[in-house]
Amino acid sequence: MEKWRWSSAAHRLLRLCSNPLSDLRCSPKLQNSTPSGVLYRHEGTCEWIRPFIGQQKQHFGQRSHHLWSGNCLGETPGIQNRFFGATATKIERNSKFATLNSNDISYFKEILGEKNVIQDEDTLLSANTDWMHKYRGSSKLLLLPRTTEEVSSILKYCNSRCLAVVPQGGNTGVVGGNVPVFDEVIINVSSMNNVISFDKVSGILVCEAGCILENLISFLDNRGFIMPLDLGAKGSCQIGGNVSTNAGGLRLLRYGSLHGNVLGLEAVLANGEVLDMLGTLHKDNTGYDLKHLFIGSEGSLGIVTKVSILTPPKLSSVNVAFLACKDYFSCQKLLLEAKRKLGEILSAFEFLDEQSMTLALNHLEGVRNPLPPSLHNFYVLIETTGSNESYDREKLEAFLLSAMEGGLISDGIVAQDIQQASSIWHIREGLPEALIKAGPNYNYDLSLPVEKLYNLVEEMRTRLDNLATVVAYGHLGDGNLHLNISAPQYDDAILAQIEPFVYEWTSKNRGSISAEHGLGLMKANKILYSKSPAAVNVMASIKKLLDPNGILNPYKVLPQSMIH
Amino acid sequence: MEKWRWSSAAHRLLRLCSNPLSDLRCSPKLQNSTPSGVLYRHEGTCEWIRPFIGQQKQHFGQRSHHLWSGNCLGETPGIQNRFFGATATKIERNSKFATLNSNDISYFKEILGEKNVIQDEDTLLSANTDWMHKYRGSSKLLLLPRTTEEVSSILKYCNSRCLAVVPQGGNTGVVGGNVPVFDEVIINVSSMNNVISFDKVSGILVCEAGCILENLISFLDNRGFIMPLDLGAKGSCQIGGNVSTNAGGLRLLRYGSLHGNVLGLEAVLANGEVLDMLGTLHKDNTGYDLKHLFIGSEGSLGIVTKVSILTPPKLSSVNVAFLACKDYFSCQKLLLEAKRKLGEILSAFEFLDEQSMTLALNHLEGVRNPLPPSLHNFYVLIETTGSNESYDREKLEAFLLSAMEGGLISDGIVAQDIQQASSIWHIREGLPEALIKAGPNYNYDLSLPVEKLYNLVEEMRTRLDNLATVVAYGHLGDGNLHLNISAPQYDDAILAQIEPFVYEWTSKNRGSISAEHGLGLMKANKILYSKSPAAVNVMASIKKLLDPNGILNPYKVLPQSMIH
Repeated sequence: MEKWRWSSAAHRLLRLCSNPLSDLRCSPKLQNSTPSGVLYRHEGTCEWIRPFIGQQKQHFGQRSHHLWSGNCLGETPGIQNRFFGATATKIERNSKFATLNSNDISYFKEILGEKNVIQDEDTLLSANTDWMHKYRGSSKLLLLPRTTEEVSSILKYCNSRCLAVVPQGGNTGVVGGNVPVFDEVIINVSSMNNVISFDKVSGILVCEAGCILENLISFLDNRGFIMPLDLGAKGSCQIGGNVSTNAGGLRLLRYGSLHGNVLGLEAVLANGEVLDMLGTLHKDNTGYDLKHLFIGSEGSLGIVTKVSILTPPKLSSVNVAFLACKDYFSCQKLLLEAKRKLGEILSAFEFLDEQSMTLALNHLEGVRNPLPPSLHNFYVLIETTGSNESYDREKLEAFLLSAMEGGLISDGIVAQDIQQASSIWHIREGLPEALIKAGPNYNYDLSLPVEKLYNLVEEMRTRLDNLATVVAYGHLGDGNLHLNISAPQYDDAILAQIEPFVYEWTSKNRGSISAEHGLGLMKANKILYSKSPAAVNVMASIKKLLDPNGILNPYKVLPQSMIH
Repeated sequence: MEKWRWSSAAHRLLRLCSNPLSDLRCSPKLQNSTPSGVLYRHEGTCEWIRPFIGQQKQHFGQRSHHLWSGNCLGETPGIQNRFFGATATKIERNSKFATLNSNDISYFKEILGEKNVIQDEDTLLSANTDWMHKYRGSSKLLLLPRTTEEVSSILKYCNSRCLAVVPQGGNTGVVGGNVPVFDEVIINVSSMNNVISFDKVSGILVCEAGCILENLISFLDNRGFIMPLDLGAKGSCQIGGNVSTNAGGLRLLRYGSLHGNVLGLEAVLANGEVLDMLGTLHKDNTGYDLKHLFIGSEGSLGIVTKVSILTPPKLSSVNVAFLACKDYFSCQKLLLEAKRKLGEILSAFEFLDEQSMTLALNHLEGVRNPLPPSLHNFYVLIETTGSNESYDREKLEAFLLSAMEGGLISDGIVAQDIQQASSIWHIREGLPEALIKAGPNYNYDLSLPVEKLYNLVEEMRTRLDNLATVVAYGHLGDGNLHLNISAPQYDDAILAQIEPFVYEWTSKNRGSISAEHGLGLMKANKILYSKSPAAVNVMASIKKLLDPNGILNPYKVLPQSMIH
């Protein structure tokens, strides 16, 4: 991206971004190739989550985009093993599940080979623990299948023995969906990481589930295409996990959800049967489109082993603007205008409130107020991506000029180069890190109608008064609010003010209590806040139909009482 | 759209479209408001399909986009009641279904009111017959519910009585999916035609299933938005039917399939239970996304009663070019270049071969050779849609210039105004009409990998030699081939050369035997050509789970042997 300047009219109000807003070399979003540059202020390489990465580097790649700020090897006081932000539900191990015995181990070694049957304690500790140290299971066995047939053999055996399993990919989930709750056998598909085919005419990529998202992005970049999804966790997360959790991310506004982009899947059912739904067609109206059952079902209906996905061509021109709005209504109206005037080149529309900016300034090193001297009530980050640099610039300029003249924005900057664009993105993307550094935090990932989205934030502020700071930001273009309550300490009095109010409010306004993270273990019992009893009953029936013994990722997604 | 001219460089090779290519006033695609202009050469208003339209005009609107060329009121020799293009399978009425009695009629009158319980013979004849007169059932009862609750009451009753039903909307399907096979009760949702809400910030429309697509397009047009799908049948087809058949259409290349655009549904299950999945959120990861089961299941799992859909903003600039390519490889390469260079403004990429053009010239009135003097091997229609007219024109011009210099196109024209654009579209959209006028026709709607798509056409030509003319065109951007075999007469010797070869070839190349039309009655027994036995088994299990008595649209979609 070259430097560029504004016309005189726009220049009067919108300022060029002449100084870096932070001293970060590069934001995670715009720089993929320097893992050390994106592990935020860690003193060393972060291996805490799975020591076996060292042995499996060729398979696992680097975990590059954590927002974790604590000591990698130690525990973090206050949040380890605590289900914060959700009232913990006491769960008991389902006694119908068998426990591992030596015959089981022998069988797995026979079909997978000795080295792919992991019983080492350190490795298991990592595989049992989620990356935020919120959830920890006690599995005694980690299996690393290399083929669909091996996954099938494992499941067939586990089903016959009634051994519960948990499917695992990059282990980057945040709701406890991808680690064991008790002693479930962990089936990690990281070794299944081959690209199977790529059609450069149609842009259709077919690959195994264990491919790391960032590797796929690099693969496509060399061929002039991009993945239709991009996540902060791309350095570790895997496409099978992305699909299983219906990951949202930064490009959803432009390219839509995985339900639209995934053209086909291969999945293995609980009984070991391989479901070949691996179509590579834009259009296929032959029977029920079963693949959608596996997109977002968090591994509870089957283990995704292969993915076929439509990838868009890479476009050369990217621009980033950071704007100030006086109120939430202006943010909304700006979104409408951006959709209309930037139309086909709009690729991101993010927002944050004043409290978020204060947090970033206080806790993100090197971040300075991008629109001094004072703070503004709201900020919006707009990104455009298109095929013609000069047209895109002019279009963005005209849009911003009109928005200024219409009073929708009161100040703004436009990045002049990739470094400035990265610095702007870092303010938005650094917020989870800033929140963790600020102390105890109750966080909620909500979808709400855009027009009502900020009402919840204001009501929450009224409820909490001075007890805690309410910090709100998110993907406004998608109606996705990240609502955070940053408190001096975890306190049941605070939690009682937040829950069940936050879920009830979301439910009342036909929102979703999980926009992009899934339900996992954390919210399995909350599903009725977002889905009707009739719908959940059908889900439970489908679960029982496809997994009658309930061995696949038990205790997750659906209330256990409805399955057993 | 204003007139515009090419730069001198482009002008040398690409010609301005100075004369209308046909004398049609407007193609169906670009002119929605003149029903009389789009009923191709009918001598009068075509009411044959449902005389009750006259009584229900406020609900049903006009059937405006038929490509039917026969006498509206009579039969068409040779194709009426003939399952052409598919070996007919003998089907027997399932004896487990009850037959209607006077108590049933009384009950329905009680819950729907007398006038919404139709037993009139003429009306029933229309509702029993598909619009191409290929399929005809013998139902004695047509019900017109006005609310979800009424649909629920009907189904609850029918399920308890084991009365089979067929859901019906605009009755524009082409595979026999929406008319009875025997005496199934017809449930037509046309009276449920209200827009429930529209959010102009998010562009999310919520409406009842019976809304006619064209009415929704008009509704949105007034508000600066468009529907993400557009079909030739838009004047009659309804959104509930579109969703139930996962309709493709003209905008799929740009906006993707309904699986990506439909945000929520309300559907009534066979037992009358109402499934509220009517989310209005871009993101919602709470449990299994059940709505996808109802998208494309052709009314066999439930009756869709409400739809929530994401609508894109309307963009002001539309350009249309019609280009000649010397071979299929050039068409493919042109597609790749168009995706890359036109990027975000590409909205259609259609192709036709020389045989298609010959057919259009011989059978479509007023159509003249658009690129004289001789014919070319292949033609490509490219449409762009964007937010800035001058940028889009320049972008298209640069793309075309580069394509010419690269030898990908040998000649071309660009529409100067909407009439010329309409004339260009009419050549492509008039082909089904031209085929019907040419005589007996075996037609197949296939999805295939783009690179292999035309190989099938060539192999078919070799197989048929001089027996028939093979005509190929379609949505190349979507990999959707419309393969037609135009023959002097329906002839089992010809059919034997086509089938099962066409299905086997499609299956071998991992294509789909139904790209956008569905399986319906015509191809219910062919599903294994496109889906694996394991997948079809799961589909059958889901059918039995949700509709244990099999009352919903029996004999369709799945082989009956797998359900009962």
